Amino acid sequence: MKGKRTDLSDATCSIARALGVIGDWWSLLIVRDALDGMRRFSEFQTHLGLAKNILSARLKKLVELGILEIVPDPEGSRYNAYVPTKRGEGLGVVLVSLWQWGEENCFADRELKSAIVDKQRGEPLERLRLKTTSGREVGPGDYTTAAVKAQR
Amino acid sequence: MKGKRTDLSDATCSIARALGVIGDWWSLLIVRDALDGMRRFSEFQTHLGLAKNILSARLKKLVELGILEIVPDPEGSRYNAYVPTKRGEGLGVVLVSLWQWGEENCFADRELKSAIVDKQRGEPLERLRLKTTSGREVGPGDYTTAAVKAQR
Repeated sequence: MKGKRTDLSDATCSIARALGVIGDWWSLLIVRDALDGMRRFSEFQTHLGLAKNILSARLKKLVELGILEIVPDPEGSRYNAYVPTKRGEGLGVVLVSLWQWGEENCFADRELKSAIVDKQRGEPLERLRLKTTSGREVGPGDYTTAAVKAQR
Repeated sequence: MKGKRTDLSDATCSIARALGVIGDWWSLLIVRDALDGMRRFSEFQTHLGLAKNILSARLKKLVELGILEIVPDPEGSRYNAYVPTKRGEGLGVVLVSLWQWGEENCFADRELKSAIVDKQRGEPLERLRLKTTSGREVGPGDYTTAAVKAQR
């Protein structure tokens, strides 16, 4: 590998391209924190324990990609706030799918201490499931990619 | 960073832990191909264009993690086949969520040439949406993590 990353950002597969655009795990964890309400550089730094130069580079990239945007701190401090854009908010589903997979596969029994709940009533989120547009549930191996006509 | 990866595999956050376990983008793309029906080392290699030693290390790791398992080639060749386990199949939702985000955010208009469809009738998959267990849809910022009692 020699530290060189293959550029996936022009891959034909939407998954590869998404991964190429998001960048690395850290970027995804920054987006997680931003979606959870974090706004300031110092908050991200404390929570993620990332070196300043690395965090700074990741935030810059996320802003360039239109996943976060910089706004003046709504609380009036002289620092900027990093706020998720619509595009950044769209990563919420990706993060929840990772959470749910991690929950089922990466913890010993009784080890997991938190769940994702809605703020309004504290109800847990439903497990994400794959369905067709007509509502039929599809399992692993039931779906594939296919060429589409010029629609969308 | 010095090429050293931070170990996220014992993080308390389920997302971080999932990312720590999965490893890198390549591992996720190998799982994508396996879920799409690929089985042999040579198939993965041709499709991903990965160096043999890197692919080999990634496959070994995925087997150790119980995401893929090695079985004798069902077609009778002397080569092993790599087959997704239940745990590997669970990553299907993560991959579809990435696909859908990529589809909306990483392609120019009309550039995307394929969609995910169910094999049976060619129907596209529905966009994944976040809902509570009682079926209310939740938007970005509407959910958070909360401590859970000793359940599960």
